[in-house]
Amino acid sequence: MSSDKPWAGRFTQATDPRVEAFTESVSFDARLAPYDIQGSIAHATMLGRCEILTRDEVDAIVSGLQAIDQQIAAGEFEWDTALEDVHMNIERRLTEQVGDVGKKLHTARSRNDQVATDLRLFMRDTIDQTGAALDQLADTLLELAEREADTIFPGHTHMQVAQPVSFGHHMLAWREMILRDADRFADCRRRTNRMPLGAAALAGTPHPIDRSITCELLGFDQVCENSLDAVSDRDFAIEYSAAASLLMVHLSRMCEELVLWTSAAFGLVELPDAFCTGSSIMPQKKNPDIAELVRGKSGRVIGSLQALLVLMKGQPLAYNRDNQEDKEPLFDTVDTVLACLRVFTPMVGALEVRADRALAAAGQGFATATDLADYLVMHGVPFRDAHAVVGRCVRRATDAGCDLAELPLEDLQAESAAIKPDVYAVLTVEGSVAARDHIGGTAPNQVRAAINRARNAS
Amino acid sequence: MSSDKPWAGRFTQATDPRVEAFTESVSFDARLAPYDIQGSIAHATMLGRCEILTRDEVDAIVSGLQAIDQQIAAGEFEWDTALEDVHMNIERRLTEQVGDVGKKLHTARSRNDQVATDLRLFMRDTIDQTGAALDQLADTLLELAEREADTIFPGHTHMQVAQPVSFGHHMLAWREMILRDADRFADCRRRTNRMPLGAAALAGTPHPIDRSITCELLGFDQVCENSLDAVSDRDFAIEYSAAASLLMVHLSRMCEELVLWTSAAFGLVELPDAFCTGSSIMPQKKNPDIAELVRGKSGRVIGSLQALLVLMKGQPLAYNRDNQEDKEPLFDTVDTVLACLRVFTPMVGALEVRADRALAAAGQGFATATDLADYLVMHGVPFRDAHAVVGRCVRRATDAGCDLAELPLEDLQAESAAIKPDVYAVLTVEGSVAARDHIGGTAPNQVRAAINRARNAS
Amino acid sequence: MSSDKPWAGRFTQATDPRVEAFTESVSFDARLAPYDIQGSIAHATMLGRCEILTRDEVDAIVSGLQAIDQQIAAGEFEWDTALEDVHMNIERRLTEQVGDVGKKLHTARSRNDQVATDLRLFMRDTIDQTGAALDQLADTLLELAEREADTIFPGHTHMQVAQPVSFGHHMLAWREMILRDADRFADCRRRTNRMPLGAAALAGTPHPIDRSITCELLGFDQVCENSLDAVSDRDFAIEYSAAASLLMVHLSRMCEELVLWTSAAFGLVELPDAFCTGSSIMPQKKNPDIAELVRGKSGRVIGSLQALLVLMKGQPLAYNRDNQEDKEPLFDTVDTVLACLRVFTPMVGALEVRADRALAAAGQGFATATDLADYLVMHGVPFRDAHAVVGRCVRRATDAGCDLAELPLEDLQAESAAIKPDVYAVLTVEGSVAARDHIGGTAPNQVRAAINRARNAS
Amino acid sequence: MSSDKPWAGRFTQATDPRVEAFTESVSFDARLAPYDIQGSIAHATMLGRCEILTRDEVDAIVSGLQAIDQQIAAGEFEWDTALEDVHMNIERRLTEQVGDVGKKLHTARSRNDQVATDLRLFMRDTIDQTGAALDQLADTLLELAEREADTIFPGHTHMQVAQPVSFGHHMLAWREMILRDADRFADCRRRTNRMPLGAAALAGTPHPIDRSITCELLGFDQVCENSLDAVSDRDFAIEYSAAASLLMVHLSRMCEELVLWTSAAFGLVELPDAFCTGSSIMPQKKNPDIAELVRGKSGRVIGSLQALLVLMKGQPLAYNRDNQEDKEPLFDTVDTVLACLRVFTPMVGALEVRADRALAAAGQGFATATDLADYLVMHGVPFRDAHAVVGRCVRRATDAGCDLAELPLEDLQAESAAIKPDVYAVLTVEGSVAARDHIGGTAPNQVRAAINRARNAS
Repeated sequence: MSSDKPWAGRFTQATDPRVEAFTESVSFDARLAPYDIQGSIAHATMLGRCEILTRDEVDAIVSGLQAIDQQIAAGEFEWDTALEDVHMNIERRLTEQVGDVGKKLHTARSRNDQVATDLRLFMRDTIDQTGAALDQLADTLLELAEREADTIFPGHTHMQVAQPVSFGHHMLAWREMILRDADRFADCRRRTNRMPLGAAALAGTPHPIDRSITCELLGFDQVCENSLDAVSDRDFAIEYSAAASLLMVHLSRMCEELVLWTSAAFGLVELPDAFCTGSSIMPQKKNPDIAELVRGKSGRVIGSLQALLVLMKGQPLAYNRDNQEDKEPLFDTVDTVLACLRVFTPMVGALEVRADRALAAAGQGFATATDLADYLVMHGVPFRDAHAVVGRCVRRATDAGCDLAELPLEDLQAESAAIKPDVYAVLTVEGSVAARDHIGGTAPNQVRAAINRARNAS
Repeated sequence: MSSDKPWAGRFTQATDPRVEAFTESVSFDARLAPYDIQGSIAHATMLGRCEILTRDEVDAIVSGLQAIDQQIAAGEFEWDTALEDVHMNIERRLTEQVGDVGKKLHTARSRNDQVATDLRLFMRDTIDQTGAALDQLADTLLELAEREADTIFPGHTHMQVAQPVSFGHHMLAWREMILRDADRFADCRRRTNRMPLGAAALAGTPHPIDRSITCELLGFDQVCENSLDAVSDRDFAIEYSAAASLLMVHLSRMCEELVLWTSAAFGLVELPDAFCTGSSIMPQKKNPDIAELVRGKSGRVIGSLQALLVLMKGQPLAYNRDNQEDKEPLFDTVDTVLACLRVFTPMVGALEVRADRALAAAGQGFATATDLADYLVMHGVPFRDAHAVVGRCVRRATDAGCDLAELPLEDLQAESAAIKPDVYAVLTVEGSVAARDHIGGTAPNQVRAAINRARNAS
Repeated sequence: MSSDKPWAGRFTQATDPRVEAFTESVSFDARLAPYDIQGSIAHATMLGRCEILTRDEVDAIVSGLQAIDQQIAAGEFEWDTALEDVHMNIERRLTEQVGDVGKKLHTARSRNDQVATDLRLFMRDTIDQTGAALDQLADTLLELAEREADTIFPGHTHMQVAQPVSFGHHMLAWREMILRDADRFADCRRRTNRMPLGAAALAGTPHPIDRSITCELLGFDQVCENSLDAVSDRDFAIEYSAAASLLMVHLSRMCEELVLWTSAAFGLVELPDAFCTGSSIMPQKKNPDIAELVRGKSGRVIGSLQALLVLMKGQPLAYNRDNQEDKEPLFDTVDTVLACLRVFTPMVGALEVRADRALAAAGQGFATATDLADYLVMHGVPFRDAHAVVGRCVRRATDAGCDLAELPLEDLQAESAAIKPDVYAVLTVEGSVAARDHIGGTAPNQVRAAINRARNAS
Repeated sequence: MSSDKPWAGRFTQATDPRVEAFTESVSFDARLAPYDIQGSIAHATMLGRCEILTRDEVDAIVSGLQAIDQQIAAGEFEWDTALEDVHMNIERRLTEQVGDVGKKLHTARSRNDQVATDLRLFMRDTIDQTGAALDQLADTLLELAEREADTIFPGHTHMQVAQPVSFGHHMLAWREMILRDADRFADCRRRTNRMPLGAAALAGTPHPIDRSITCELLGFDQVCENSLDAVSDRDFAIEYSAAASLLMVHLSRMCEELVLWTSAAFGLVELPDAFCTGSSIMPQKKNPDIAELVRGKSGRVIGSLQALLVLMKGQPLAYNRDNQEDKEPLFDTVDTVLACLRVFTPMVGALEVRADRALAAAGQGFATATDLADYLVMHGVPFRDAHAVVGRCVRRATDAGCDLAELPLEDLQAESAAIKPDVYAVLTVEGSVAARDHIGGTAPNQVRAAINRARNAS
C-alpha cells in the first residue's frame, strides 16, 4: 500500500476514494484561507517572541505565508482535495516554498484550535459587515421617516384598517426592529471575539507559549479561558444564526407588507422599477420579486439555525468529526443575510407612497371611531360605556351610508349628551394622527422628535 | 435605457445589477436541464399530434433540443445568468440554432407548469436512485445478519447492558428501519409522478391540447387534476424531505451505535481501515469519521425540511417568487442522502464484530436476571413476586462478588423453593438468547427464519 | 429508608422529590388509559389461550380491567404521580381490586412493548379521526366548488391579478391539497398498525406466546418483525407529525387567502358571523380570527415535528428515557390538527363570495392579455412574437386609459394584421375562463366535470 | 340573538361554540394574572397623577385589583372562558367589585399594549429566575472543579481517548458554557425590559398620559420608542427561546457525557442514588434517567423556538390574532428550562468520579504520544518530523504489547537521537497534565488559578 496519509503506516487498506470525497472540506473551507494565514502569522510571531522559533525561522514562515496569501487572492492557488482541508493545503504549500522550517509552524498548535480561530476571525469580520449593513438600513429608514412624517397611512390589525398613522411612524417601527438586530449582533461579537489559540488539541500545550501575544496581534478581546471549551465551542455560530433568523423574520415581515402595499388591491406604495421585474405581456405589471425572494429566504436561514442546533445537541466534548458540518449552513446564512440587506436597503430607500390612495384607505371603515370614544372618555364617560355609545353612532352612520364625520350633530348627541360641536375635529384622520402626541405616539410631531433623538444619539 | 428584458418597454429604469445577481437561478437550476429538455420534447410532440404545430416544426424543435442536450452533457453549453434561469437559457439557444420556430415551443405552456414538470421528473429520478440505494443497504444488512446470527452481543437500555441479543438480530432491527424508509419513498413517488403540464400560468390554456399524450410520453401516472394546484404544489419536495429526515435520523442512530461500539471503552466492533481515518501520531488510532459525518449530516437534512415548511407556510396561491427558494434546500438534501447511503453501505458491509469482547459484555451486570424471573413465572410465581425474588438473588451475588450462574443452588433456593437445578440453563447468555424463540424474538433460529422470510419475499 | 419503589432495596438514598416530579409521566400519559386497558385485555386473553394463565385468572384480570376502564371513563379514578405512569397506576389498581392474580398480568411483557402498543393504538384511532375530518373538508369543498363553478374570481401570481378563474376551480385546488393529505395519513396508518407486543424489554420473551392472537384481537395488520425495532421505533409518530405539518401548511395557505380576501382592500369574500369576532367600537368590523389562529397554529405543529426529530436523532437502540418526551409534542399536534379541521370546515362551508367585486377584480390589470397572445398564436404568430404584439397593445390601452377590450379594432390591427373582429370574444373575463376547457383547466365545464369524476370515484 | 359579546349588536349570528372554545386563551394566559394586575395598578396610578382619573377613582381601582390579586393567589378566583382572556376576566371582576369606576381602568390603553406589558413583566421575572439558576449551576461546577482539580480523567476526541486532562478542568469547560448562557440571558433582559404601555391599539392615545411614570413604577429601563413596534414586537420571546435552545444544547451535551461516563463500558462517574432510578429486577442497576430526560427535553425547547419563528415570519404589522399562539410554546420553554436546571444542578453537585478507573482510562491508547512529540519539538525536531518519529515509537510499543513509557530507552533512541533519559517524565499521564501549564491549559495549577480568578471576579 502506498499513501501519503500521515497515518498510513498501520492501516492495511488505502482510504476508499468514496471516503475521500465524502470527508474532504477544502471545497467549502477554502474561503477561510485569509483568516487561516492571518492566524498562522500571529502564531509564528508569538513562537518567535517566546523563543520557541528563531527570528529567521519566523521571518521565513511569515514571508512564505504572505506569498501564499497573495497567490490565493490572485486566484493562482491550486486547492487539492486529497489534502482534505484549507489548513493542510496551506501548510503543505508553505513547506514546498520555504523548506523544512515550514514543518515547524504547527508547533504548539493543532487543527482543533486553528480552525476555531479561523472561524472566529471570519465571523468577527462577518458581524462587522452585518452591522454596517444594518446601520445603512437604519439610516435609510430614518430618512424615509423624515420624508414621510406627515404622510397619512392606514394602520392595520387583523389585516383590517384600524387607525390612521403617519407613514414615517411606520418606518420608525421598522427601524426599531433593525436597531434591536444590530444590538444583538454587537452582543454576539463580544462572545465571538475570544481566542482559542493555545488550546491545541484539547488540553493546552507543554510549550512555553504566551497566549496574550497572539491575542493582541489578532485583535481578540480576551483568550478562551478553558482549552476543552475553546475547541468544542460553536456557540458564536449558533448565536449569529439565531440573530440572523430574527433579522430575517423582520425583513420577511417588512417584505410581506411591501407585497401587500404594492398589490393592485391595496395600491399604497410604488417600488422603484430597477428593483422589480415585469411581465413580457403585461407591461404595466411590476412584480415585487425582491420582496418575495427576501421573504422566501427567511426559510433557509431559519433552517440552517435548526441544522446547527441539531448538529451540536448531544455531542460529547471535545472534537467530533460531526463538527465539520458547521461551516456550510453558517456560510449560507452569512451570504444570505448580507445579500438580502444589500438589495433590500436601496429598494426601500427608493419606495414612493401613493399618498392620495393611502389617505383614502386610512379613513376607511370608521378608522376614527376610537377617537370618538376617547373624546367621550375625556368628557367624563367611562371607557366601557363610551365604547357602547360609539358602537351605536357607527351603526347610525352605516345605516345612513355615511362616515362618522358626516353624521349631523343631533344624531351624535342623541347617543350621548357629552358630544359637542368640537367633536368633528377628532373625527378626521389628520386630527386622529395629530392627537397621539406623546413619546412613541404617531403624531408627526412625535415622529420628528424621535428622528431628532435618533440623530442626536448617533 | 437599453435592455433585452421582455418587459423593458414600460420601465423607466434598467434592472439594478444587484437585483439581477440576487434573482438569477441558473447557477443552481441548470442541473434540471436534462429534465427540462425531456419535458420540452414531449410538449412539442404533443403540440404536433394535436396539430398545433406542424410535423416539420416539431422535428426542428426536437432535433434542436437533442443537440442542446448533448452540448450540455459534454459541458459545452455556456450558461448566462442574464437569462435568469435554465428555461430561458435553453429556449434562447434553441431559437439561435433552429430559427424562429424555436419561438413556438412555449405555445400552450408557461414557466410555471414547465418548472413544476422539471422538478417532478428530477424528483422521480431521485426517488428511484434513493430506493435503489436503500435496497442495497437492506441487502447488505441481511447478509450481515446471516453471517452474525449466532454472535452474542449486549442489548442496551439507558446505555446500560440489559439483555444479551444476537448481533444478526440487531442488524435486522436496522433493516426494519430501512424498509420503512424505502416504503415511504415509494409512497412519495406515487404523489410525485403526476403531470402539471397544461396548467400553463395557473388557469390552463385555450389551445386544443391533449394532456394525456404528454402524460404518457413522460411516463407520468396521471395528470394533475387542477391547474391552480398544479403550479402551486410543492408537497412532493417537502414529503421527500420529510422521508429523508427520518432516514437520516435512522442513519444517525446507527452511526451513534457504531461510534460507541468502536470506542475504546466498548470495543465491540471494528470498522474497515478503508473507511476510517487515523492520527499522524497515534497510528493505532482509528477514527470513525464516516459515522460521525453521517450523524452530523442529519442536521442539514432536518434543517432543509424546516426551510421548505417555512417557505411554503402562508403563501397564497398560485405562484410567488418565494418559490424559487425551493430548489437549493431540496438539492442539498438529495445530494446528502445519496452520498451518505453510498458510503455508509459498504462501510457497514465490511464491519467486524469482536465476538469475544461482545460475549463478555453481554454477560455483564446480571444480564440474565430477567431470565431467572421468567423461569420463576413459568414455575408459578406471579410476575411481580418473581421480580422481588430475583432482586434478592442478585443482591446475594453482588455480596458474594460473583455472577448469578455462580451462586450455589441452595442460595437460590433460599430465595424461592420454585428454583430447581435446571435453572442454570437459563442463566447463561446463550441460553437466554436461544429461549426467545418466537417471531420477532432474538433467538438465532428466529433470526434465520426472518432472513428466510425476507429472501422469499423479494 | 422506606420507599415502595421496586428497586429501593439497593439504593442508599430515597429518590429526591424533585426527581419524582421531573420524571413522572402520568400527568400526560393518562390519556392512553383506554388503549392501555384494551392492550392488556388482549394480552391476558392471549396468555390464557396459550395456557400461560388459567381461564379463571384471565377472567379475573379482564373483568378487573373493564371495571377500571369504566372508573376512568367516569372520572372516578385517582391518578398517583408517585406510581410514575399510566401503566403502573392501572396495574396497581388491578391488583388492589382482583388480588394477587393482578401481579400475573405483566407476564411475557415489559413496559417497553406495552407503551409502544398503547401509542400505536392511540395513533391508529387518531389517524382515523383525522381521515374522517379531512373527508368532511374535502366534501365541503366539493359542494362549494359546485355552488361557485360559474363565479368569476381573480387568479393571482406575485399577489398581482394574473388571470381570471372560476372560484369553484380555486376550491378544487384546495381540495387537491386535502386529498393528498388524506392519502399521506392513510399511508401512515399502514406503517402504524403493526404490533410490538411480545417484544418484551427488547429481545422477546422465553414464554410460549402466540403473537398472532394478540395481533388479531387488537386489529393490527401484522406484528412488528423485530423485537429491538419494535420497542425503539417511533417513526409512526414522526410520520404523523410530518403529514400534519404539511396539512397545517395547506390550511395556513388557505387561511392566508381568506384573510386577504376578507380584508377591506380585497373585499372578495364574506365569512359567516358565527366564525368571526368583532370590535366593541366598530361594529361593522369582522375579524377573521379563526383563519388567523389556524395560520398561527401551523407554527406549533411544525415545531413539534422538529422536537421529535431532535429527540430521536442520535439515540442508540433500544429504549432510552429520552423517549418519554415523545408524547407531549405528539399529543399537542393531534389536538391541534383535529381542532383546526373541526372549526375550519364549517367556516369554509359557509363563506360567501362577493361575486360583483370578484368579477370586477378579475378584469383588473389587463388580466386577459394572455388570451390575446394565445389568440395570435392560434392565428399563426409565434409565441414570443405574439407576446411582443400584446405588450404594444397594452401600452396603447394604458395610454388611452382604457381596457384592452375597449381599444378600437384598427388600433389592435395596427399592431398585428392577424387580429380580426372575433378577437373581442377572448378579451372578456368570461370568455377567458370558458376557453380553458381541458382537463385541469378553469372552464366551468371542466369544474363540473371534475366534480362529477370526484362524485363517481367516491 | 342574545350575547354579551361587545360587538354582538351588528352580528346576525351568535358565535359558534366551537369558535369560542377554539379562540379562548384564559386556559393558558391566566398565569399572567399577577403581572396583569401589577401593570393595571401602575396604569391607574399614572392616570391619577396625570389627572385623567381622580384620586378616589384610583384608590378604588387599586384596592379592587389588590383584592383580586389575593383571590387569585388563594385559588378562589373563577376563570370564565366565555370572557376569553385573563384581561377581560380581571376587568369584569373589578367592575363587579368596585362598580362603574372599574370601567374607567381601560382608559388610554388597549389589550394590545396591555398583553405586551404583561408578557414583558413575566419574562423579566423568568429571566431573573433563569439567571439565578445558572449562577447556582456555575457555582456548583466551580466547587466541583476545585474538589477534582487533581483528578486525572481521559479527554476524548471522536469518542476515542486522546489526551489526559484534569476532571476539574473538564468541569470548568462546562462552566464556560453556562457563563455564556448567563451572559446571553442578561443581554436578552435589557431588550425585554422596555415598556409598551401607552402604545394603545397601535398608534398611541390622545389622552395626556405620562409614560415615564408607568415606566418607573414598573421598573422598566425605558419606554418602547414606537407604538406600532411596541404592540407587534415579540423579539424578546424569540430571543429568550434562542438562548434557551443553546442552553439546552449545552445541558444535552453534558448529559450525553454523564450517560456515557456512567455506562458500564466507561464506568468513570457515579451519580447519586437520589437522582437515578433502578430496575425492579437488577438492583445493582442505576439508570441515569435525569440525564436522559434533560437530553430529551432539548428537543421540545428547540421545537418551540422553531414554532415562534414560524409564527412571526411573514406577519404584517401590527397585531394579528396569530400572535395569541406565542404564549404556549414560550411557557413550555420557560417551565422546561427552569425544571431542568433545578434538577441538573444538585445531581451534578453530588456526582463522584471513580478516580482509579479514570486514571487507567486516561492512559489508554498511548494518550501521551502527543507529549513525546512535543518533547522532540522542544529538542529541535520539526513538528511534522517529530510526528513521524512518534508514529514509529508507538508501532514498536504496539508490537511489544507495552505502553510507550515501558519501551527501553535504546528502542526510543533508535527512532530519534534527540530522546534522552528525561523523556520518561513526559510519558506519564500525570506529567502530561502538569505540563500544560499556561492560561487555559489543563494543569491542576491552572485549574486552581482559573478558580481563583473566578472567585475574585464575582
